[in-house]
Amino acid sequence: MKIRPAAHNDWPAIWSIVRPVIRAGETYALDRDMSETDARHYWLGQDKETFVAEMDGKIVGTYYMRANQPGGGGHICNCGYVTGAEAMGRGVAQAMCLHSLDHAREKGYKGMQFNFVIGTNTRAIKLWKSFGFETVGRLPDAFHHPEEGYVDALVMFRAL
Amino acid sequence: MKIRPAAHNDWPAIWSIVRPVIRAGETYALDRDMSETDARHYWLGQDKETFVAEMDGKIVGTYYMRANQPGGGGHICNCGYVTGAEAMGRGVAQAMCLHSLDHAREKGYKGMQFNFVIGTNTRAIKLWKSFGFETVGRLPDAFHHPEEGYVDALVMFRAL
Repeated sequence: MKIRPAAHNDWPAIWSIVRPVIRAGETYALDRDMSETDARHYWLGQDKETFVAEMDGKIVGTYYMRANQPGGGGHICNCGYVTGAEAMGRGVAQAMCLHSLDHAREKGYKGMQFNFVIGTNTRAIKLWKSFGFETVGRLPDAFHHPEEGYVDALVMFRAL
Repeated sequence: MKIRPAAHNDWPAIWSIVRPVIRAGETYALDRDMSETDARHYWLGQDKETFVAEMDGKIVGTYYMRANQPGGGGHICNCGYVTGAEAMGRGVAQAMCLHSLDHAREKGYKGMQFNFVIGTNTRAIKLWKSFGFETVGRLPDAFHHPEEGYVDALVMFRAL
């Protein structure tokens, strides 16, 4: 697997991975009906560094990194990861998380925070825990899941 | 005290209140060198409703309200409040907080969350607690305070 910075012409492949996740509305607090243009501005926004994971020359995952807060909060980063449905269970998320931790250290970030991990997203929670993230906050009923109704969201953190 | 929606021509008065807080960098995670234009776009942004508190016809405080997350997180709101230095200790923050809780209920929000209450901001923490907010998260060393160095930030929440 190769993880490299995303180029603008990677967008169609990124969108094919991110679109179903946005449309499902189960794991990200984003407008489910978000337009492709808005999604592109979000995922490839100037406030972010965006990466893609390639396997056999095909883009199978993507993640972004940004400062989680401006000003006095700028030493903590935030990331969002999506693995393509077809590549699930092949270590793509693990590889992206490891890459992001290394990249964040290189950039001088002192910690990484996930602001809004949906409580039903047990796959992600298990993964972040295996990478040393701890739950530092629990937001009661903060997410309206399309199937489960109101569920908690977690704030997860690890120092770097 | 009268609390009303901010108009665009209130900006000079709002800026005179918000500017010293941004420049001090002790209570908000915002770029301390933020330009007035960027501050105006932030405080009066289209994603926000902004209010001003008037006392004897003079603007003495301001706050904004916005959805804390898009999509499935849109039922929780977030606010930011600033009281003018000259009006400290006269109940302006209390009045704004009360107004915001009422307004949030009217808008149908189910909860209010403060994402990043600086741990050294004991005045604010005491106030939010008195209004029923609970600390639901603690972000270790998440804020670099210009005097105190790295300090924790709190996530505070109350249901509506």
